[in-house]
Amino acid sequence: MQTWKLTIAYDGRNLCGWQVQPGVRTVQAELESVVSRLFGGVKICVHGSGRTDSGVHALGQVASFRAEKERSPEQVLMALNATLPEDISCLAAEIVEPAFHARFSATGKTYRYLIQESAVRSPLWQGLAWRLRGPVDWAGVDEALLAYRGTWDFSAFQAPSMPRRSPVRTIWRADREQMTGPHGAVQALTFEGPGFLRYQVRILVGTAMEVGLGRRPVASIPDLLARGPDGARDEAGRTAPPDGLYLVRVGYEPRERGVLGQAP
Amino acid sequence: MQTWKLTIAYDGRNLCGWQVQPGVRTVQAELESVVSRLFGGVKICVHGSGRTDSGVHALGQVASFRAEKERSPEQVLMALNATLPEDISCLAAEIVEPAFHARFSATGKTYRYLIQESAVRSPLWQGLAWRLRGPVDWAGVDEALLAYRGTWDFSAFQAPSMPRRSPVRTIWRADREQMTGPHGAVQALTFEGPGFLRYQVRILVGTAMEVGLGRRPVASIPDLLARGPDGARDEAGRTAPPDGLYLVRVGYEPRERGVLGQAP
Repeated sequence: MQTWKLTIAYDGRNLCGWQVQPGVRTVQAELESVVSRLFGGVKICVHGSGRTDSGVHALGQVASFRAEKERSPEQVLMALNATLPEDISCLAAEIVEPAFHARFSATGKTYRYLIQESAVRSPLWQGLAWRLRGPVDWAGVDEALLAYRGTWDFSAFQAPSMPRRSPVRTIWRADREQMTGPHGAVQALTFEGPGFLRYQVRILVGTAMEVGLGRRPVASIPDLLARGPDGARDEAGRTAPPDGLYLVRVGYEPRERGVLGQAP
Repeated sequence: MQTWKLTIAYDGRNLCGWQVQPGVRTVQAELESVVSRLFGGVKICVHGSGRTDSGVHALGQVASFRAEKERSPEQVLMALNATLPEDISCLAAEIVEPAFHARFSATGKTYRYLIQESAVRSPLWQGLAWRLRGPVDWAGVDEALLAYRGTWDFSAFQAPSMPRRSPVRTIWRADREQMTGPHGAVQALTFEGPGFLRYQVRILVGTAMEVGLGRRPVASIPDLLARGPDGARDEAGRTAPPDGLYLVRVGYEPRERGVLGQAP
């Protein structure tokens, strides 16, 4: 019995998110189909570090599974990339200790959200960034991001239908940088923490961009965070579209467990 | 009668190049259909600065046309982006002097070719960069690029079936830079000159990369260029795939007419 850790990238535009659902293409379903064939046809369950929603991308999603048949990492890497569809690839395949689980062993996650400030749409960013006509007050956005850091009750910043689990989360990093690649410049908002609530990153982005577009005072954000469990979903901003969201990295470093950003 | 200049971007992955061809999607056909409707239903011919081949992208292709009906630049820009398909957009629409012609008025072109050196494929670069497993000797590639600069008879570096027009071309700029955007790092090879032969950029890239992969001595390039009309197509390298090629900019500056790189 071997335990496998896969690092996975995907272009989420034509995928209905991570989790298996009948009748639609999902990353988990595509992976399970390919992995099960590769390991002799028995049905293998592939666990992700967490779900990504429909239309969300990944540069470093992590998945794990256990398999009876033995294979080498090189075999697995080659076979997966030869058989996975074009919009999903395997960046690394490793045999890890038996206790490893992509979700339960994770100690941190990094998400990035791309925003293109442009009056006209760009075919090469279609579905890959959130386009805003602007003008955006980026200094205001930076202030909003700063307010998110630390440990807070993010009740107002999660999907409204969430089951009753604790809405307290810690954000280690929330900042912005301009990234200029061959397809032009975009603003990249990076969020890092031990874990996030459903839709949390997209609501954090949507709310920060309301500040950037002059539709909300920046002080409303620390106010809402300080009210914790009394904050209502409709007091935070709109949920930003999935287009701009990327799961960049999942951390498994034990040292990350102890690190907590500044407390509220 | 107004003469229009459009700056156009496209993701070439699902387009069969610039030129109208029956039964397939091309940029010119999509533009002519939208422009003709916008200007009252009369058939309007849209001229490009030059053809791009199937699968080639553009960040700044230029097109021109003449129309009887009068429209404002804002109307044209908005209407084109509202009706063009997602993989084509109009970045700018201007009314220009009557003599302007996207092809005949052009004084310079900039192409960029993206190469990703990676053992595994990346979904977010699929069809948008040429992936080479490597290792690539980039200093060797730089030497090859340096050899291309100047005015040469590029007989060996053009599509073999070209009609008999002069194969002498000038290259002002041929260099490489690493570009790191939100989807990772790629090498960008940039070529600038008054005009290029069919497939020339892709053959220049293919030949330079043979040097980079250790399959050709760099000295073979100046040798082949110096032999001019006696150089045969099969003495240059393979034609690089269209995936990595971008028409970045078309210049219409009169000052460019006089500038010629170093002569051979």
